[in-house]
Amino acid sequence: MPFIDVKLYEDRLDEQTEAALIARLTEAVGDVFGPGAAEQTWIAVQGVPRRRWGIGGKPGSADQ
Amino acid sequence: MPFIDVKLYEDRLDEQTEAALIARLTEAVGDVFGPGAAEQTWIAVQGVPRRRWGIGGKPGSADQ
Amino acid sequence: MPFIDVKLYEDRLDEQTEAALIARLTEAVGDVFGPGAAEQTWIAVQGVPRRRWGIGGKPGSADQ
Amino acid sequence: MPFIDVKLYEDRLDEQTEAALIARLTEAVGDVFGPGAAEQTWIAVQGVPRRRWGIGGKPGSADQ
Amino acid sequence: MPFIDVKLYEDRLDEQTEAALIARLTEAVGDVFGPGAAEQTWIAVQGVPRRRWGIGGKPGSADQ
Amino acid sequence: MPFIDVKLYEDRLDEQTEAALIARLTEAVGDVFGPGAAEQTWIAVQGVPRRRWGIGGKPGSADQ
Repeated sequence: MPFIDVKLYEDRLDEQTEAALIARLTEAVGDVFGPGAAEQTWIAVQGVPRRRWGIGGKPGSADQ
Repeated sequence: MPFIDVKLYEDRLDEQTEAALIARLTEAVGDVFGPGAAEQTWIAVQGVPRRRWGIGGKPGSADQ
Repeated sequence: MPFIDVKLYEDRLDEQTEAALIARLTEAVGDVFGPGAAEQTWIAVQGVPRRRWGIGGKPGSADQ
Repeated sequence: MPFIDVKLYEDRLDEQTEAALIARLTEAVGDVFGPGAAEQTWIAVQGVPRRRWGIGGKPGSADQ
Repeated sequence: MPFIDVKLYEDRLDEQTEAALIARLTEAVGDVFGPGAAEQTWIAVQGVPRRRWGIGGKPGSADQ
Repeated sequence: MPFIDVKLYEDRLDEQTEAALIARLTEAVGDVFGPGAAEQTWIAVQGVPRRRWGIGGKPGSADQ
């Protein structure tokens, strides 16, 4: 605890951004609840293709 | 707001059904809460292989 | 299948909007995949207090 | 009802473990709520690559 | 890992069924992946009021 | 995009920790993907009672 589920565009993810996101989000939990909570933080990062991400009724476009 | 997460069989999805699902689900939000809410609606469509979708203890079969 | 998880502001929900949202979202599935899919559609509506919904780093405010 | 969403390492999943997990988790629901609930149980199994699963700020490693 | 998110009718939940569901679902993971995985299993049980659970376009009724 | 769903113990949440978590998690997104992504970040914070959070087959206890 806590469990963090992150959904974002698949094309924004690579080995580097995944590791950075996991590290920074976990630090954020530690800043609020302390290092003990950070050690116990689980994060699942889920990439969603832009075609499958709707914003205002339209699939996500390249410029978003 | 709102955020809608849709899980369904991967094999039901293609560029056409994804776009139609995003458009129609967003319209449905607009019908209930008005056009402002529709513009602010995010939708993530997630395809799940039938093997990984259980119904009554069995993986989803082709005829469902 | 499909399973639709809808998260939105708790204060937008009452018996009427819940029923309307369930009906209209299910119709939207039927429009795209046919009546058989609509009959098999499950929807879970989850209310989130504005204090617990962040947009751009700030909790949701009354005017959103 | 119920709907069970299971997230675990992608590399732990194959046709056999998927079917066994669906069967056993559904049996568990039946043990608690009876066979009627088990028949109505939906399960979505989602594989997450270790790189995208954070534990204590680090991506999941091979020995976890 | 794994993380299991269970959504079911709020009125099916009490201290007893929550503990039994957590125990039995975790055992099911252990049966498939071994005791090490069971020890590492996190489960979040989420109660949904019947009014907010749609099946085939209608809110969940008392006889389901 | 992105959408972040955070589940944690209900008793860890109050107006202060909710706002701090939303702010810090959004900053973390900005650190990795830039300020534009932070502005577009949505976060839903969900409190789970300890009784409904299983760890290794047991409900969450006060000392976790």
